[in-house]
Amino acid sequence: MSATTAAMSAAATAASARASALSARKSVASAKPYAGKPLKLARRVVAAATAKTSTPELDINTKVFEKELVDVAGEGEYIVKGGRHLFEKLPEALKGINTIGVIGWGSQAPAQAQNFRDSLAEAGMDTKVCIGLRPTSSSNDEARKCGFTEEDGTLGETFDVIAKSDLVMLLISDAAQAKMYPRILAAMKPGATLGLSHGFLLGVMNSDGTTFREDINVVLVAPKGMGPSVRRLYEQGKEVGGSGINASFAVHQDATGNATDIALGWSIAVGSPFTFATTLEMEYRSDIFGERGILLGGVHGIVESLYRRYTKEGMSPEDAFKNTVECITGPITKIISTQGIKAVYEAVEDKDEFMRAYSASYMPTKDILYECYEEVQSTNEIRSVVMAVERFDQFPMGKVGTSAMWKVGEKVRAERVEEDIPLNAFTAGVYCACMMAQIDTLREKGHSFSEVCNESVIEAVDSLNPYMHARGVAFMVDNCSYTARLGSRKWAPRFDYNLEQQAYVSVDNGSGIDEEIKSKFLSNPAHIAIANCCALRPSVDISVKFGVGSARDVDVDFKQGEKATAA
Amino acid sequence: MSATTAAMSAAATAASARASALSARKSVASAKPYAGKPLKLARRVVAAATAKTSTPELDINTKVFEKELVDVAGEGEYIVKGGRHLFEKLPEALKGINTIGVIGWGSQAPAQAQNFRDSLAEAGMDTKVCIGLRPTSSSNDEARKCGFTEEDGTLGETFDVIAKSDLVMLLISDAAQAKMYPRILAAMKPGATLGLSHGFLLGVMNSDGTTFREDINVVLVAPKGMGPSVRRLYEQGKEVGGSGINASFAVHQDATGNATDIALGWSIAVGSPFTFATTLEMEYRSDIFGERGILLGGVHGIVESLYRRYTKEGMSPEDAFKNTVECITGPITKIISTQGIKAVYEAVEDKDEFMRAYSASYMPTKDILYECYEEVQSTNEIRSVVMAVERFDQFPMGKVGTSAMWKVGEKVRAERVEEDIPLNAFTAGVYCACMMAQIDTLREKGHSFSEVCNESVIEAVDSLNPYMHARGVAFMVDNCSYTARLGSRKWAPRFDYNLEQQAYVSVDNGSGIDEEIKSKFLSNPAHIAIANCCALRPSVDISVKFGVGSARDVDVDFKQGEKATAA
Repeated sequence: MSATTAAMSAAATAASARASALSARKSVASAKPYAGKPLKLARRVVAAATAKTSTPELDINTKVFEKELVDVAGEGEYIVKGGRHLFEKLPEALKGINTIGVIGWGSQAPAQAQNFRDSLAEAGMDTKVCIGLRPTSSSNDEARKCGFTEEDGTLGETFDVIAKSDLVMLLISDAAQAKMYPRILAAMKPGATLGLSHGFLLGVMNSDGTTFREDINVVLVAPKGMGPSVRRLYEQGKEVGGSGINASFAVHQDATGNATDIALGWSIAVGSPFTFATTLEMEYRSDIFGERGILLGGVHGIVESLYRRYTKEGMSPEDAFKNTVECITGPITKIISTQGIKAVYEAVEDKDEFMRAYSASYMPTKDILYECYEEVQSTNEIRSVVMAVERFDQFPMGKVGTSAMWKVGEKVRAERVEEDIPLNAFTAGVYCACMMAQIDTLREKGHSFSEVCNESVIEAVDSLNPYMHARGVAFMVDNCSYTARLGSRKWAPRFDYNLEQQAYVSVDNGSGIDEEIKSKFLSNPAHIAIANCCALRPSVDISVKFGVGSARDVDVDFKQGEKATAA
Repeated sequence: MSATTAAMSAAATAASARASALSARKSVASAKPYAGKPLKLARRVVAAATAKTSTPELDINTKVFEKELVDVAGEGEYIVKGGRHLFEKLPEALKGINTIGVIGWGSQAPAQAQNFRDSLAEAGMDTKVCIGLRPTSSSNDEARKCGFTEEDGTLGETFDVIAKSDLVMLLISDAAQAKMYPRILAAMKPGATLGLSHGFLLGVMNSDGTTFREDINVVLVAPKGMGPSVRRLYEQGKEVGGSGINASFAVHQDATGNATDIALGWSIAVGSPFTFATTLEMEYRSDIFGERGILLGGVHGIVESLYRRYTKEGMSPEDAFKNTVECITGPITKIISTQGIKAVYEAVEDKDEFMRAYSASYMPTKDILYECYEEVQSTNEIRSVVMAVERFDQFPMGKVGTSAMWKVGEKVRAERVEEDIPLNAFTAGVYCACMMAQIDTLREKGHSFSEVCNESVIEAVDSLNPYMHARGVAFMVDNCSYTARLGSRKWAPRFDYNLEQQAYVSVDNGSGIDEEIKSKFLSNPAHIAIANCCALRPSVDISVKFGVGSARDVDVDFKQGEKATAA
């Protein structure tokens, strides 16, 4: 799920959400063991693995910043660390960038625009950050409240701003990008830089068989968190070192020879504590796939199918909700966030029950995940999103959180005692199987461990699941971006049916534990990679509450875009 | 669902299946009213509508046969009537066709090859019908048993047969066509005719961005029934006038100037009582869409969601099965087959209950149907099928008929008393809503009434539902072609979720009857069109039993193809 598409509008019950997030999110070193189980210290594993580090496939050709080689489960990856002390290098990195146009006003734009403006000021630069919007958009008022005005030339009509900008940060919705990109590209200055926070547009262009103009740079900086978090942690970062949201970055086209440093300057200016390398294509594949998988679609299908199973077996609706949704967004999420996936297996009482569920669920979920990945890779999925958005007038998207189960959830959450949420071994086995199947799918498709861990684990347990803990899985699905909602609506029922028709039937037929699947789970190098990636995370919690600071979640610009109702 | 892909392998409990089919399938004129309700005679309606017949969009440029203008709900459509008396025109229609190569030995090939051979003999022609197979294929024995032998040059290696044929009837599976078409096209003689029984290949080529060689004819003859029926009714036709399976036909490319008459000659020679016009593209769209909709995917999602609903409401599993699957494949199917869709509404006791279910289900099912249609239209769906088949080694397709519900079904069928199957008004409302939504979708997408009625109604109630009545919906889904199975597996859960999340919630919230939806249902011209199309149907039952005559349902040729286990 990309930062731009994570435009959730929940006025989440802030207290409970934050409480959960705060208890869930600790740095690896200080994490408390769950339920008295011994904590395998990630750092120890990191040290052990460092000896056989391989050379990264993706280099970072920076002339301004310093790249670092880090070890992720034995694979070398280059990253660039950020920090406010590097703002002094922004003039060099952003040479020739006199005007930065931030197009749109969704989840990311307010955060990135303000962070960028503050950092440029800190660096003593007079580069202007301008917001580009349709004149009729209600977002103009929002932008003015954040200090972007027509009077000082920092607020203007979309195409006017594009035409005068040296760096165009295109932060409108996926659907709007798909519709408007020919006009946007045509409006850009020769030698300017097109900046994206999601590779979706490349997917659209691959599908259309079009390519970018050769005389512009095309780069990506994708913060691994929602806009409000990007803003809040940047502000925190003024006092707390290392605070911020990590980002991936990519240079798709380097017309001017300094596209890498422009992108890294952007990433550091908006506050990324570290930035890792990817490509536009790998980013959109893993992102669009990830939200259809365990992040949203997968977890939704899992809890629907398990809730049905448990109630059919005689559990009360309340208990069934606690043993599915609550269990996943509560204890399982906490354990994975602080100790990794294998620790869930170590924490459950009935290990055989976990492993029976895991064994039976791994292939049926991987089957759907492979199909989903290849749908994204072939650009089928992107075409589907574009076509679905075109049908919205005729068929407005239905809600998924309407059934009795989600009403039960409201009641359960209202009466929640965090410590009493059960850690159901069967639920844990199914959830971990789908998460591990997603990790293995991405690895088999050639994604770096950093990307795999971010799109399959960290985003789930540190960002989305805590939201779901506050409001339920279905609410989250009903309130994220069109691209994510459409995907979740399409894939959740597929996970559900495959689990019910294959996994649960297999368990009920007594097929037992598959020793090969068990052994592959226990020895999966992903466990080390997750520990390594977690050790690189900033030590500050990301934002779970909406409306923090002045970066808020409002209707984005352009009719075709995300329509999240402001809190 | 195309004739070629309807390669079901059930050793269907022949007695019960036939009994059901026999009672279900009468000509409109002789139909018995259901449960004492008055029968609206279709012919009266036909007569009333004839006055305003429009000119057909698709002409039939035959120089040999006679086209007829028929009225379908006020729309003119050209058809060509068949019959054994027209065999004398085959020499003229098939001028220059000295060798006919039938490639493959699936559901259609044995039937069409034998019918064609018999008709040519009857016409006194020495045109040879040759079967083309891989030398290692076990189908060679099957073909020999039907009198095609290497000795007389009527059985040979695939590409040898293609190279020597003037008409190449390509009746291998969709997946095999997708894989092998470049080699097949390259092997054909200049001026030869490529004959298809399904437009799938054009979808693949559209997706690949390739086109047919310009020096060949490309035509389609698509019998609207499975191979065994095509053979059995042809044999019956020797005694009973008008017996046979109707077909649609298309001329995609006419290099020689007489492609239309070659196609019509083929259609008449294999025994079509009448042939209606379509295009390759409209055929594959409506066919692939139709099987994902009410024919297989739709009906599967409907019964899964309703069974769950009824058992949750306290019905016993047996009663829930009777009120869902049995009700649809029994009484509802019978009523629609003999009296049309509106007659179901007239037959149910609680009309408001029907209409509440109908009102609530129409848009949520149409939403999925539109999405599905556009996925097919954009060739996304065809790419998906091709990719899925490539994954079969890694992820063999799972069964859908594994859950407790389908075990209950076995018991219910074993104890069935046909007359006691309930006509559940709610189930009827949901089923008819999905069927009508499919009809409206196809109409809005520009399909002729003949095609719409065949792909949405006639194939359901006269062909597939009777099979499902014998073995259950899930068994049918688990035993049809890859293309159909994959589609049903993908779309059934989507119908299920949309019904559960939107339709049933709406009913339970007391939203009542939507008067506009009700009125559109009652006045839908499709009711007249169905009556018109039914009046054109042959008066003989199509085959419900496998293994009839020498045309049987066996493993088709080519590894990638349909693998139906012979009875």
